[in-house]
Amino acid sequence: MSTEDLAKRKKAAVFCAKLMGKLEEDSIPAIVSSKIFFDLYEFLGVRDPFKAYKESSNKLAERVLNEIEAIMEVDLKTALKLAIVGNVIDFAVGYSPEKIEEDIMSLIKGDLYIDCSEELFKKLENAKVLLYLTDNCGEIYFDKLFLKKIRENFPHLDIYIAGKEAPIINDATVEDLKAAKFDEVGTIISTGSGIVGIPFGEVSEEFMDIFRRADVIIAKGQGNFETLSEIKDERVFYLLKAKCRPVARELGVPQGSMLCI
Amino acid sequence: MSTEDLAKRKKAAVFCAKLMGKLEEDSIPAIVSSKIFFDLYEFLGVRDPFKAYKESSNKLAERVLNEIEAIMEVDLKTALKLAIVGNVIDFAVGYSPEKIEEDIMSLIKGDLYIDCSEELFKKLENAKVLLYLTDNCGEIYFDKLFLKKIRENFPHLDIYIAGKEAPIINDATVEDLKAAKFDEVGTIISTGSGIVGIPFGEVSEEFMDIFRRADVIIAKGQGNFETLSEIKDERVFYLLKAKCRPVARELGVPQGSMLCI
Repeated sequence: MSTEDLAKRKKAAVFCAKLMGKLEEDSIPAIVSSKIFFDLYEFLGVRDPFKAYKESSNKLAERVLNEIEAIMEVDLKTALKLAIVGNVIDFAVGYSPEKIEEDIMSLIKGDLYIDCSEELFKKLENAKVLLYLTDNCGEIYFDKLFLKKIRENFPHLDIYIAGKEAPIINDATVEDLKAAKFDEVGTIISTGSGIVGIPFGEVSEEFMDIFRRADVIIAKGQGNFETLSEIKDERVFYLLKAKCRPVARELGVPQGSMLCI
Repeated sequence: MSTEDLAKRKKAAVFCAKLMGKLEEDSIPAIVSSKIFFDLYEFLGVRDPFKAYKESSNKLAERVLNEIEAIMEVDLKTALKLAIVGNVIDFAVGYSPEKIEEDIMSLIKGDLYIDCSEELFKKLENAKVLLYLTDNCGEIYFDKLFLKKIRENFPHLDIYIAGKEAPIINDATVEDLKAAKFDEVGTIISTGSGIVGIPFGEVSEEFMDIFRRADVIIAKGQGNFETLSEIKDERVFYLLKAKCRPVARELGVPQGSMLCI
């Protein structure tokens, strides 16, 4: 996506193959792959190669969501499911809005493979501070609807929504959250890092302060799971699809399962 | 496929990531990836991890081909198309024979995107020596039928069929060709190397002698194309599907095209 220049692409492929050697046995994929991306961005002299991709994802997701809200009443539980479904859908170019709506409607009819949503909602009743960790552009519009429903049901909550400090793949940055008007549903904050997920030691002290203060943390997608799962923090609820075999194996669920865990 | 031991798999993944650095700008993918496989086989202490996969591919391909021959008359041109289709089909576990037959029948109805078969047949009429370079197990049964039809149509030909010296991925080895009774259609020879394709400098002098003597060379699949295409040898006819973007771009055809070129 960064260049049409085949010679430059070839150099980038070789550069990238050599970077693969950074992988170590205890590497967290989200972190090591982010660092490879950063080196590659620098090598290619680009800041945000996914910019156009993110913009079209956002546009498509916003449009699809408006249409869904027009044809059905979305309650809190449905909004939670939509937030997971948003993580499943790849709002890539070439995927028609009609087909996406059809897929979404059929996905939200199904049950979650593991569903801890009642426990989450009970915790939110007694919580003061909620921290919401976003994942990709596109799905953030589904997150926003879920957060709107959370605010309606738990108006006492102090809500923080975290985005990445700098562009990385198609992850939502603070700028992306501002553009999607997340200030309507809470306070936008930065993780302080461009790395995918929540890489402890790389996130900012400001972020860690809110992370520590939060009573409930909702974490979207595999990147957040990869970086947070080892701390076994009971405040954290993961909304995700177990997309790859290692994550499905770690969670003890079939690959492709949708989870609130 | 080599081990169920997750710790060993992880070590192998890290070992393999570091080997990726062997890629250079002028690398031929078939050659550099073969060498990575050899190092990985050694690291894992395995000789032929694809053995079971190759056996089931062979069994399935043989069965499917018998059924196709029972329901239709296969002439020389159809046999050539079947040989290309055999390169398209992945005879993997979980693909039902019925579905494969259906796919094959629909594939051979279509035209080749570039079709130099008339030129090939004309050259075979005046040729003395034909060298046939095989690709994968499974499809070799389709190659054998094509070679049978070549023998019927050009009985004067001296036919050599080349397999790999040692196991590499799912490529057909000399042993595999013997087991599939290729001695019924010609003389089985070894490339003298386990590397995918025909890596000049790594193949044996015996092989090169026949390669030089051949009047026509039929080369199956991308690996042979990657290693031979740069010599621009008019004796070589490629039967392949342009599976990946770089090969399709190199040939100036849409990705996925079936070709006799």
